[in-house]
Amino acid sequence: MSVSRNYEREFVRTFFTSPTAVEGEDDSAKMLRRAAELRGMQAPDVWIPDNEDATAPSMRDEGAENIVEVVAENGADFPGEIHPRIVWHREDPTTRYQGFQYMLEIADPDNGAVEHIDGFVVPEVGDIDDWKKADEFLTIVEREHGLEEGSLSMSVIVESGEAELAMGDLREEMGKPSNNLQRMFMLVDGEVDYTKDMRAMTPTGELPPWPELRHNTSRGASAAGLIAVDGPYDDIRDVEGYRERMKENRAKGMTGIWSLTPGQVEVANKAPLPPKEGSWLLRFDGKEVELRSEDGREVYDGDAVELEEASDGTYELEVGNDEFELDEDGLHEKLVDMTAYVPSMDDIVDSMEEFEAAKESGKGAIAMTQSATVVIDGIEVELSKDRMWDEATYQAAQTPITLFQDVYEHRPDQHEELEELYGSDVVERATDVGA
Amino acid sequence: MSVSRNYEREFVRTFFTSPTAVEGEDDSAKMLRRAAELRGMQAPDVWIPDNEDATAPSMRDEGAENIVEVVAENGADFPGEIHPRIVWHREDPTTRYQGFQYMLEIADPDNGAVEHIDGFVVPEVGDIDDWKKADEFLTIVEREHGLEEGSLSMSVIVESGEAELAMGDLREEMGKPSNNLQRMFMLVDGEVDYTKDMRAMTPTGELPPWPELRHNTSRGASAAGLIAVDGPYDDIRDVEGYRERMKENRAKGMTGIWSLTPGQVEVANKAPLPPKEGSWLLRFDGKEVELRSEDGREVYDGDAVELEEASDGTYELEVGNDEFELDEDGLHEKLVDMTAYVPSMDDIVDSMEEFEAAKESGKGAIAMTQSATVVIDGIEVELSKDRMWDEATYQAAQTPITLFQDVYEHRPDQHEELEELYGSDVVERATDVGA
Amino acid sequence: MSVSRNYEREFVRTFFTSPTAVEGEDDSAKMLRRAAELRGMQAPDVWIPDNEDATAPSMRDEGAENIVEVVAENGADFPGEIHPRIVWHREDPTTRYQGFQYMLEIADPDNGAVEHIDGFVVPEVGDIDDWKKADEFLTIVEREHGLEEGSLSMSVIVESGEAELAMGDLREEMGKPSNNLQRMFMLVDGEVDYTKDMRAMTPTGELPPWPELRHNTSRGASAAGLIAVDGPYDDIRDVEGYRERMKENRAKGMTGIWSLTPGQVEVANKAPLPPKEGSWLLRFDGKEVELRSEDGREVYDGDAVELEEASDGTYELEVGNDEFELDEDGLHEKLVDMTAYVPSMDDIVDSMEEFEAAKESGKGAIAMTQSATVVIDGIEVELSKDRMWDEATYQAAQTPITLFQDVYEHRPDQHEELEELYGSDVVERATDVGA
Repeated sequence: MSVSRNYEREFVRTFFTSPTAVEGEDDSAKMLRRAAELRGMQAPDVWIPDNEDATAPSMRDEGAENIVEVVAENGADFPGEIHPRIVWHREDPTTRYQGFQYMLEIADPDNGAVEHIDGFVVPEVGDIDDWKKADEFLTIVEREHGLEEGSLSMSVIVESGEAELAMGDLREEMGKPSNNLQRMFMLVDGEVDYTKDMRAMTPTGELPPWPELRHNTSRGASAAGLIAVDGPYDDIRDVEGYRERMKENRAKGMTGIWSLTPGQVEVANKAPLPPKEGSWLLRFDGKEVELRSEDGREVYDGDAVELEEASDGTYELEVGNDEFELDEDGLHEKLVDMTAYVPSMDDIVDSMEEFEAAKESGKGAIAMTQSATVVIDGIEVELSKDRMWDEATYQAAQTPITLFQDVYEHRPDQHEELEELYGSDVVERATDVGA
Repeated sequence: MSVSRNYEREFVRTFFTSPTAVEGEDDSAKMLRRAAELRGMQAPDVWIPDNEDATAPSMRDEGAENIVEVVAENGADFPGEIHPRIVWHREDPTTRYQGFQYMLEIADPDNGAVEHIDGFVVPEVGDIDDWKKADEFLTIVEREHGLEEGSLSMSVIVESGEAELAMGDLREEMGKPSNNLQRMFMLVDGEVDYTKDMRAMTPTGELPPWPELRHNTSRGASAAGLIAVDGPYDDIRDVEGYRERMKENRAKGMTGIWSLTPGQVEVANKAPLPPKEGSWLLRFDGKEVELRSEDGREVYDGDAVELEEASDGTYELEVGNDEFELDEDGLHEKLVDMTAYVPSMDDIVDSMEEFEAAKESGKGAIAMTQSATVVIDGIEVELSKDRMWDEATYQAAQTPITLFQDVYEHRPDQHEELEELYGSDVVERATDVGA
Repeated sequence: MSVSRNYEREFVRTFFTSPTAVEGEDDSAKMLRRAAELRGMQAPDVWIPDNEDATAPSMRDEGAENIVEVVAENGADFPGEIHPRIVWHREDPTTRYQGFQYMLEIADPDNGAVEHIDGFVVPEVGDIDDWKKADEFLTIVEREHGLEEGSLSMSVIVESGEAELAMGDLREEMGKPSNNLQRMFMLVDGEVDYTKDMRAMTPTGELPPWPELRHNTSRGASAAGLIAVDGPYDDIRDVEGYRERMKENRAKGMTGIWSLTPGQVEVANKAPLPPKEGSWLLRFDGKEVELRSEDGREVYDGDAVELEEASDGTYELEVGNDEFELDEDGLHEKLVDMTAYVPSMDDIVDSMEEFEAAKESGKGAIAMTQSATVVIDGIEVELSKDRMWDEATYQAAQTPITLFQDVYEHRPDQHEELEELYGSDVVERATDVGA
């Protein structure tokens, strides 16, 4: 039997869950059907028909049938991967057995859905031996249904201390002949249940930030060749907070995030892509302000930083509560320290091409320069910042481009939006560079 | 032989150490006797007669005798658990053998103390094999004295890199037939010695914050079903700092903390309990200010945030150095973002009951609303904040209630103070909810 | 064969890399020769002739020859240890075999260099089995060349998730009879490649701070008796940032750092040594300002904190946007909270001697007092701060002194600069105390 599975994505930006059966609707599969029609930036990289927490326990049998029906009908045209979440619990064999039965049903080729299903998401896993139980059930499902061994991927939700520790064991367990853990695809944090499992409390009931969990998930994914995905961001209205969280995550190597609505999917699909236009940042007092670009100059409009020229040609710079008296060189140096440049997609491609050419001609390292005219209180200061690029810098800088190329290859439905965003010239160069 | 041990506490708020023998006093056991008389909020959840660092090496033989004498006499009436700390060192067999001998002596039923002793605290442990050595000695102590195998708990002080790593191995070692590590009870950080062991330095000699150690201790406790306790907070005078540390710890899932004085015990026993009254917070510039409640309005009294209404009906909001011009909706939205509500015990019980009722009637998720009138510079703004509650939210919110119930069940000596604090109606509802 | 190896350093402050062969120069070994002549504070604790990333692939054969030549000639007089870095990659057997061949060549006693070489640095390692491959090659090199088994140290660059995890396994693997991992010396973070391996991204292309990696490296070093070294700080011009990074690192127990220039070596050799003069800090709003010492008074010159005496003898203290009305005691207490003292080398030695004397006379704990006259807006406030010292405080405070003694013992070329810095009296007392 031939299937077109593609859990070969190198990056997953968006993990979008839909309830599988909603009570009290004419069509209990309404949410599934709506999700199956998403296209372009509103369509996630992976779609999770969620037959666990998003669906009431009493509706899960119907939910499994709905998954089969909707995926059989719409799966071929859906632009992302499809990974249903089934029930599971490290402490409850009954729930595990239910999860097994749902997988058997959903993956039955007679039902017509499995050829569009890339794998399953297993929540509430415990230590590595518990992961192996789910893996074994998948192996049996594959054998029973005549599917190739390992063809169904497995992703887990990390929502317990045991599971966090298990991510450190995964790499060495994956190669063992008695399991098929090579099917592992995503490590997904589930901070609500993790918070419960860790018995953590905050005065307001908000979730703790769990930076160590996110680091360990990202590291576990890196060590085992998997993909790290952060949990849900509950405050759907707070787009700025969602973006901030993703920025933090990317600095940890965690590129993907859960999305609860098509709106969040759109924001999260775009967030890891380099910006269309470069921009300059001014940093002070632990804050970062983006300067306004105007006629090729970068203007600071705030009040927290003030600059004045004295009659003797020196400068007085006020930064929050600190005052500095500086000569021209001192001012230049201070502002070089206080500024940073956010390169555009175009800039990154330029730098990579420049470095590739230099390497071709035998150079191991070159200096890249960024210049700007920064304006504070009407005073213009010319800045230029150098950065040395060597092979390692080049490769680290390549990550957003590799991500872009992965998106471009696997998501033709987003080509149009990408070309609108960047222009077709930049898109073309970005798909070619570094290959 | 029948003993009344109760290291079945789910939570430990306070870990209070007393020197076992003080030189130059008429009664070298004075500190022990005083501690044994503590009751109510000044009495700790676990009391540690400390025959290690708190007691001079030359006084430890006498200290062990004092433990036996004072616990035999007062142990039956002490409201918390009793876990003497004995000497131990991962790098010194002589010290380990001394620790074994002290345990043999203290646990000898002929001495009359062991029936009130819940376990032992073992400091300076190393890797997991070192933990097993202490466990083996406890097994021998139990056999020699005719005590049930595993009836004495073991808690360790994590004060080395090895011990930190061992917490990751504990879960899988605990089940093995060749040890009795199921007796494990508390994982306690010891930051002073840990700092020495890690060879860390700060300019002022203050302890580093060690967030990763605390995370790993909390995770280790969660994975192995144990209780995580933070180390001593040296600056006894600094109650605010102590509270801040505990708040951080709870956000990591570490509910307990070392207490050096009955005053610290009282503060730490109360800290994890939800407040009597709810309150509103205003957040800006990385700070958090509690608003003053007055006639049902929440008033900001500071200068860092300023609000003015312009003649055209728009608002000017100044937050630190940032200025915002906002219409009424914009102002509302901005303040919703800047505020957070800290629920009271009563609020939490209300929300849980409301969710339970909704679940009963077949709903999986409901919105909880909090409303307030916030006043800045005399201008009143009506706010309301929604939060979706589902099963996972419910269970995570339950942690402070479970803690309260654990306290209520095991600490009858605190009932009166709890009723004074919350009123008997709230106490009753809080002991019933979620059961 | 007798060699004078000394990878017995307890601390490594500086890890200085030099390209082994530069193209287009008359003498391709120019950089090596220059580095070999460094002495005193500009000479690193460990010098890394870098036949990996710092040297173009096409120049590495010549680089290996240069190492042999320059080290044979200058190694005897070089004041630090010498640890060449060879090529290696966890995912590429060809690169590993090349690394083996370079080690065979460089360590060949016929070439005259090996007696001055303390070990090798192995980059790009993976999991612990990969570390064993490098260790095995070193064992073969030793056997082939008639060197004592384990006499060549091995240090690794941690620049992958696998290697980060491997640090948790090291302690238990080191004792096994089938390897010689006891030769391990330094664990060195390599954040550029680590960032690439973790696929992390920041908007500006700057490196993420990776606090968890640094913690895990420090912990791994502590657990296995090794030395933790942080990776390169690229912005050579930014001395303040480099110092700030080292301060953070020391609070994590990571004392060493990569140095890219003799200038960085000098800064990093001095950074972990206690200061010549003590100083007072004022802390507010998450910032820390050093007070200016003048005629025995500590003066605050900034504008962020303001102090005024009212006519009724009370005080008004403004801290950023917060205002406090305080009586004299309240002011004293507030300023005790807001200040901290950074002890000088002399102070630390004093405190240690004082505690040793107290211990001698039977006391287990004593209070150390620091007093100062703090001046804000012309108003003088007398402060005194107490701190309890017990055995654990003493031992934790000892770390900078132990470091100083390690430096003093192994780096006679720095004696003169140390005596200039501290005065010979303080140097003498610091070398004697705590021994």
